[in-house]
Amino acid sequence: MKISVLGAGGWGTTLSILLHSNENDVILWEFNPEYAKTLTDYRENFYYLPKIKIPKEIQITNDLVKAVTDRELIVIATPTQYIRDSFKELEDFDFKDTIILNVSKGIEIGTLKLVNEIIADVLKKVNADKISCLSGPSHAEEVSRKIPTVVVCANPDIEIAKMIQATFSNDYFRVYTSTDVAGVELGGALKNVIAIAAGITDGAGFGDNTKAALMTRGINEIMRLGLKLGAQKETFFGLSGIGDLIVTCSSKHSRNRFVGEEIGKGKKLKEVLADMKMVAEGVSTAKSIHQLSEKLKIEMPICEQVYQILFNDKDPIQATNELMVRALKEES
Amino acid sequence: MKISVLGAGGWGTTLSILLHSNENDVILWEFNPEYAKTLTDYRENFYYLPKIKIPKEIQITNDLVKAVTDRELIVIATPTQYIRDSFKELEDFDFKDTIILNVSKGIEIGTLKLVNEIIADVLKKVNADKISCLSGPSHAEEVSRKIPTVVVCANPDIEIAKMIQATFSNDYFRVYTSTDVAGVELGGALKNVIAIAAGITDGAGFGDNTKAALMTRGINEIMRLGLKLGAQKETFFGLSGIGDLIVTCSSKHSRNRFVGEEIGKGKKLKEVLADMKMVAEGVSTAKSIHQLSEKLKIEMPICEQVYQILFNDKDPIQATNELMVRALKEES
Repeated sequence: MKISVLGAGGWGTTLSILLHSNENDVILWEFNPEYAKTLTDYRENFYYLPKIKIPKEIQITNDLVKAVTDRELIVIATPTQYIRDSFKELEDFDFKDTIILNVSKGIEIGTLKLVNEIIADVLKKVNADKISCLSGPSHAEEVSRKIPTVVVCANPDIEIAKMIQATFSNDYFRVYTSTDVAGVELGGALKNVIAIAAGITDGAGFGDNTKAALMTRGINEIMRLGLKLGAQKETFFGLSGIGDLIVTCSSKHSRNRFVGEEIGKGKKLKEVLADMKMVAEGVSTAKSIHQLSEKLKIEMPICEQVYQILFNDKDPIQATNELMVRALKEES
Repeated sequence: MKISVLGAGGWGTTLSILLHSNENDVILWEFNPEYAKTLTDYRENFYYLPKIKIPKEIQITNDLVKAVTDRELIVIATPTQYIRDSFKELEDFDFKDTIILNVSKGIEIGTLKLVNEIIADVLKKVNADKISCLSGPSHAEEVSRKIPTVVVCANPDIEIAKMIQATFSNDYFRVYTSTDVAGVELGGALKNVIAIAAGITDGAGFGDNTKAALMTRGINEIMRLGLKLGAQKETFFGLSGIGDLIVTCSSKHSRNRFVGEEIGKGKKLKEVLADMKMVAEGVSTAKSIHQLSEKLKIEMPICEQVYQILFNDKDPIQATNELMVRALKEES
């Protein structure tokens, strides 16, 4: 199959290599022309996926129109908040026979849209039913080392989801299918905020008991929002829900958990972000969730405390204790 | 309230101290007369909960009849497989006004009974509706250090559950209530088997992705069994379900995860158990679940692979790979 991956971060690069090893014709698009040249010259993504070789058969380009022309499948692996601007020049591009697969996670600040909705907005000639998403517990660092991983792909048309499943699956990478695009996307987006909260409990010296209680309340909080937005309950208890939440809240690879941990230790958000080379989507998502929960009038106590800690300098220990007290009041 | 805690392991000792600090009159029963004397003399449980002081107001005894006489609440914190034998002498004791709270986790080998069912069998004069259970993500090592913890207490009569909630709750220990005794017990029992599987993936060098996928499938496997046994689906996505699963599969304190890790590294079960001073309930539960799933004709692939690895010397890496392949076949 002729495939382009748009975005040469750790995940985009990993999926390009995986799709190439599954015998597809792969183009990898990088937005920064200089870094595209570095990738082409050295065949290694030093910045986002060090020590993994990019096979020479993968074409690397900075030319967006060239990247999307005459492709059967386009994988969007661009940070959520940059998607709208990055792909403006493709507004009128004819995508009607192209399958679009979104592997980014988040909610756009301001519009409060999920990634599939941003894509449908920007790429006006995409057939909205062809926009799929893929999510689940899948750190790029591990997939690129061929560590067994299981994820889920969602499309309203199960046949398209199955086609993507067949394209991505191999010995170490397994893909389930689902028709619940909103549920799969929401789980992937919101767990990043819960992971910041989990990191805060780590950094502030709370225990494994505290963190597990917080994660449990976290997935139920995500589910309540999801049900309001038309997602299916079961999705949140699958790979793209608790699966992804678990890996993001506990893994040493998780950038969002790391941000939380540093904040829990007493650092300010600006300091933490200044030291990071990669995007922690949960920081933006905390902001959009704050807006979305106000708009929909849904209480999301954990996400709200994360927002207050990140953007209004609330004390992390006080916030965690408030969550504990609230816990008893609410569900007893 | 006049309370006895039967069993001076780490959890029984921790709960005795907690109940005493909540201003109850507490007796702690230890089955081994010599160790009961050590606990009385030194006021420290060197073996199971080192470095935590046991207040002198807590009476420690080896006399079972004395321990249960004239008590309002009896907390059973004895390893599951020993409950039947340990309490035989109380067969005809009049417990009809006593509330019994089970904090042990497991399924009895042979009878395939849950702890509340074993208790109803053995203590013939207990009012079965007074048997409650308490479970959730709660390592004794952390609760004894007053680290914020949230658990759930279940009784068919919600008023009894609320009374127990009020007795145990304090600043750092929060108790939710539920009426789903079977669901709460099953989550607590079966997560120990999934934790052994999670430990195996750690020991055998799989990644965080693999472990998160396994845990996700694990809770769904537990839930399928639970539904067959009359439990409520929601319970498995709460504190006694995913909450306890998360803490047990990820914490350094977890004995069951540790057993799995050693086996994943290539040790034999006998060697691992010989080096441990504490009971890993998951090993017995793996055996009873193997029997129970055959009896009920329910497929429980993860529990079955753990059983085969522990008791039939199956290769852990082969077993994990089989689970991965099966995953795709089953749920695609």
